[in-house]
Amino acid sequence: MNAFVRNLWYMAGWAQDVCEGQMLARTFLGRPWIVLRTHDGSYAMLADRCPHRFVALSKGTRNGDVITCAYHGLGFSAQGRCVHSPFGHETALAASVPTLPVVERWGILWFWPGDPAAADPALIPDFALLDDPKPIARATLRMDVGYELITDNLMDLSHAEFIHRATFGVNGSLMDSGQHRVVSDESGAIWNNWDMTDTQPPEWSRAMLPEGALIDQWLHIRWHAPASMALFIGLAQAGTDRREMVVPPMANPHILTPETPNSTWYFYTSDPGPEAEAFARKVFLEEDEPMVKSAAQGMAGEDFWALKPLILPTDAGAIRARRRLMQLRREEALA
Amino acid sequence: MNAFVRNLWYMAGWAQDVCEGQMLARTFLGRPWIVLRTHDGSYAMLADRCPHRFVALSKGTRNGDVITCAYHGLGFSAQGRCVHSPFGHETALAASVPTLPVVERWGILWFWPGDPAAADPALIPDFALLDDPKPIARATLRMDVGYELITDNLMDLSHAEFIHRATFGVNGSLMDSGQHRVVSDESGAIWNNWDMTDTQPPEWSRAMLPEGALIDQWLHIRWHAPASMALFIGLAQAGTDRREMVVPPMANPHILTPETPNSTWYFYTSDPGPEAEAFARKVFLEEDEPMVKSAAQGMAGEDFWALKPLILPTDAGAIRARRRLMQLRREEALA
Amino acid sequence: MNAFVRNLWYMAGWAQDVCEGQMLARTFLGRPWIVLRTHDGSYAMLADRCPHRFVALSKGTRNGDVITCAYHGLGFSAQGRCVHSPFGHETALAASVPTLPVVERWGILWFWPGDPAAADPALIPDFALLDDPKPIARATLRMDVGYELITDNLMDLSHAEFIHRATFGVNGSLMDSGQHRVVSDESGAIWNNWDMTDTQPPEWSRAMLPEGALIDQWLHIRWHAPASMALFIGLAQAGTDRREMVVPPMANPHILTPETPNSTWYFYTSDPGPEAEAFARKVFLEEDEPMVKSAAQGMAGEDFWALKPLILPTDAGAIRARRRLMQLRREEALA
Repeated sequence: MNAFVRNLWYMAGWAQDVCEGQMLARTFLGRPWIVLRTHDGSYAMLADRCPHRFVALSKGTRNGDVITCAYHGLGFSAQGRCVHSPFGHETALAASVPTLPVVERWGILWFWPGDPAAADPALIPDFALLDDPKPIARATLRMDVGYELITDNLMDLSHAEFIHRATFGVNGSLMDSGQHRVVSDESGAIWNNWDMTDTQPPEWSRAMLPEGALIDQWLHIRWHAPASMALFIGLAQAGTDRREMVVPPMANPHILTPETPNSTWYFYTSDPGPEAEAFARKVFLEEDEPMVKSAAQGMAGEDFWALKPLILPTDAGAIRARRRLMQLRREEALA
Repeated sequence: MNAFVRNLWYMAGWAQDVCEGQMLARTFLGRPWIVLRTHDGSYAMLADRCPHRFVALSKGTRNGDVITCAYHGLGFSAQGRCVHSPFGHETALAASVPTLPVVERWGILWFWPGDPAAADPALIPDFALLDDPKPIARATLRMDVGYELITDNLMDLSHAEFIHRATFGVNGSLMDSGQHRVVSDESGAIWNNWDMTDTQPPEWSRAMLPEGALIDQWLHIRWHAPASMALFIGLAQAGTDRREMVVPPMANPHILTPETPNSTWYFYTSDPGPEAEAFARKVFLEEDEPMVKSAAQGMAGEDFWALKPLILPTDAGAIRARRRLMQLRREEALA
Repeated sequence: MNAFVRNLWYMAGWAQDVCEGQMLARTFLGRPWIVLRTHDGSYAMLADRCPHRFVALSKGTRNGDVITCAYHGLGFSAQGRCVHSPFGHETALAASVPTLPVVERWGILWFWPGDPAAADPALIPDFALLDDPKPIARATLRMDVGYELITDNLMDLSHAEFIHRATFGVNGSLMDSGQHRVVSDESGAIWNNWDMTDTQPPEWSRAMLPEGALIDQWLHIRWHAPASMALFIGLAQAGTDRREMVVPPMANPHILTPETPNSTWYFYTSDPGPEAEAFARKVFLEEDEPMVKSAAQGMAGEDFWALKPLILPTDAGAIRARRRLMQLRREEALA
């Protein structure tokens, strides 16, 4: 079966990282691509491979919106057409490189690796949460693990009780009194929700609360295929029907795009500033990544289902996301 | 055909290296395992992979005899049963990880990767030679070569005349006057024996002998499947019917366990002390390993027999061991 | 299909690099070989693998013309026969290692990996250009790219206008006014010729010319299968019918021998002296190699033709060479 679902919007990167006049070269779904911003402020995405001798176009130069191959000087427009040839013009000018639809929405560049006719921007999942006027840091990581194992990690927040205790000050309330529900919504999202009522506050929040006060807390994570997630966290003073918030509600994207079957681009946000950004990196790279890498190693290239994993109630969200993806892959394989 | 014979006792390590309260994580026959000593002094061996998300259990913690997975806190007993779950208890507690029979004998931990019903400790080859009250160093090496090429090396001691001359003071007597016999015994062992009579002593032994005295010398190596070998060396004053020993007879284990098809755990003993231990490592890593690695490289992944090797009379023991293993693999493949 | 044409002469190295008494160990066409010069001044080529336990013979020692294996002391003559055995002589002395015909011509050692009966030295391509009494440096590089991509590079000199502008002072005259012809000759060679008439001289040659003088320039490259090329460069004062040379005509070998399907030995000459030699290395390793490596990466292991490359008029010579090789491989596969 095909490794990836193709008829979906994937995140290519943050718009702010694609500067005019430059080229962002990244591999997605196993193939190298160039993402660029053109002089009219729109974005484009081209295969990073010259059709002549297969050299990466990103090794070349950009002149206005034309990318010139370093090896023999063929020039390609942002639309992928050969627009300049130092050689036989007729032959060369008939050449082109593949392009993909790419759309900017909420500062995110979304691309559609499937049938371009089906690339409806209305299908982009809602990340209006990024409209927040509060300054945020938009970050990008690369992990040497397939994206489904990282989705498992994010869609099962109970892992925080085990690997993020020291960093997040998790105190067992999720395991002790958390109510867990998995729900779908009309956007096609799968929600994996934890709600805790009348529970002890995390250490870091005590100073903001009356002596001995309890809290209501929630951790909701929303998944859209293939792996575009949003995490919603709230802490309210207990008994206020979630009206007296201890801190403002938090909403953060956790969006994954496969680089290859075994490596992933991880896009997320954090508070700005060197300390907060280093903290977020540390959590992802020193706490989460070793676990998901060990999982990948343990699987030794075998299929997840073939290994008959133990499925716990807390996995319900992650498993539903895996099943949805498997179904989409199957549908595309049949189509 | 299967790469390994499964219904045999293999050496997992030295009992002294498996400390109570700790976990020894090692790959054998291509799969990761944990070896541990429990509070009652017995030993256990579990697959080093959580059945939930496949993370290595050895990344977790040990509390008494329970191993707790680092990722989601599932706890497993030394018998492989899930005995603690922070989640839905019924589902989790039905889970388990594979275990292997493991037995301590002469300070060696032996495991049986095949049918547990057939794991009869009476089949463990005799290493009572380790009962010697003289202090010894029990050592472990890892070599990036398949175990059969290392067996070839050990079962054909004539190589010492070529690669261990400087270190062992070998002086050609094996090639010049050695009598070579290959014999089997009722334990299933194959013996590859060299005996030299009225021969020049090695340089290092001259000071212990009358001026001009000759010696009788023997080098006997015993093999049990898969690759558990014992080397017996003797030097006696010539003409004494092996009664007047120049040095006490020496007996040392050379036991190999495949880590993967192309890498091997090598267990051996030497005299204790930094100098003697460094000397033994040097011989194995600087003299033997480069040869067997070059052999592996020369084979370039092809089958030994398909390459139609030149077989010399001195190879008789090694070839008989290879044939025995091939026959055992074939029998298991048919069963 | 077979990866390499076998019934052809390939370059093993420069005769000057194969010193008497030593062994040159190199992999060609995916197999390890030893090249050596014997006491009578002739050359020999043997498989670098002992037929006994497959250890590299080049790890052994050379005594006169006998190569002794380091592992068990078997000795092999330059003709590949086992001529010494410390063991059962009859068995061992019947053994041998494969050899290849090898011939010295113009300081080059040529070997024939195919049917020895067909190894006619008259088929060695003409490199009499190396008879030049002017001192030259004979150089050897290894590139991690298949030889056909390097052939593409050499057989399409237009790339110089893009990647060698700074180093060679190319000034666009090839693209602007070059006449390009591809011709064959009776030796089986394919010539890819560029001729420029009444054109601006390169910067470095202006001091040797009258103020404002134009030049006639030619760049001819000759290819013999599998990848033995010779580059002929000339600069004459324009209007002199190529009689008044600006610098003496230049002729240089560019001979490629596959090490493996994805790596290549590159043999060439340059002016002698540390500066000129460093310059040539820099051009090959910093300008050409990154391009051909990027091409190989872009192809991602797929077949050149299956990728439907854009073929430009300037590729005519390279494409004809590729077609010739494909035809030779096909003929050998059928034979």
